[in-house]
Amino acid sequence: MIDEPTRGTPTPSTEIRDLNWSPTERAVARKAFDTALQRELETVIREAKARAARIRQPSELWELEDYLTERRKEIDDEFDYRYSVLPLVFARLLRQGLLKEEELRGLNEEKMSRIRQIAKA
Amino acid sequence: MIDEPTRGTPTPSTEIRDLNWSPTERAVARKAFDTALQRELETVIREAKARAARIRQPSELWELEDYLTERRKEIDDEFDYRYSVLPLVFARLLRQGLLKEEELRGLNEEKMSRIRQIAKA
Repeated sequence: MIDEPTRGTPTPSTEIRDLNWSPTERAVARKAFDTALQRELETVIREAKARAARIRQPSELWELEDYLTERRKEIDDEFDYRYSVLPLVFARLLRQGLLKEEELRGLNEEKMSRIRQIAKA
Repeated sequence: MIDEPTRGTPTPSTEIRDLNWSPTERAVARKAFDTALQRELETVIREAKARAARIRQPSELWELEDYLTERRKEIDDEFDYRYSVLPLVFARLLRQGLLKEEELRGLNEEKMSRIRQIAKA
C-alpha cells in the first residue's frame, strides 16, 4: 500500500521507528531485553535436556536437531535489538510472558502506551 | 582422465562397481550394513545425551545442534547402500571398528580381499 501524502494533516503520534530513546530508556530497554532473552534460552536449555534424555530412537535425534535449529532461527529473528522495532519486540515479549510490564519501568509514557496497545492487539 | 581403450589387455580383476552380488551375499551385506548403522546411531544417541546433560551456557545448545547436523550429514554420506560402492563402505566400517570381518562372512573371496585391501590402504 502507498501512504497518502500528508497534506498538512500530521499523524497524531510519532511513528514507532522514529521514537527517541533517552540514555536512561536505552539502559532500561537493554536490561529488559537481556532478561527476556536469558529466560527464553533457559527454557530452550531445559527442553533440550528433557528431549535428549527421552531419546530412544534415532528419529528422535533428528527431531532434537530440528527443534534446536528452529529455536535458534526463531530467537535470532525475534530478539532484534534495533530501536526502530524494539516496541514491537517488547509487546511480543509481554504477550509471551517473557517480560512483565514493571520490567519496562523507565520507558516514557508514549512508548509504554504503544507497547501495551500492540501487546493487546 | 580418459580411460585408455582396452585393446585386448583386460584388467586383471573386475571393477568394484561391476562386482556381482548373489542373493545370499546381498542378505549378508544388508545385515552387516544395518548392524554398523545401528552401532553408529547408538554412539550418537549416547553422545547427544551426554552433551545435553552437560549444557550450562546457551552457546553449548548451538554446539549440540552443530554436532547433530554434522553427524546426520556424515551418516547420510557414509552409509551408502549401493552395491557399486558397498565394498568401499564396508572397508571404512572395518577400519572404524563399526564392523568385524566375521560379520561379512558369506561374501565371496574376491569381495573380501578387495574390502581387506581397501581397509588397509
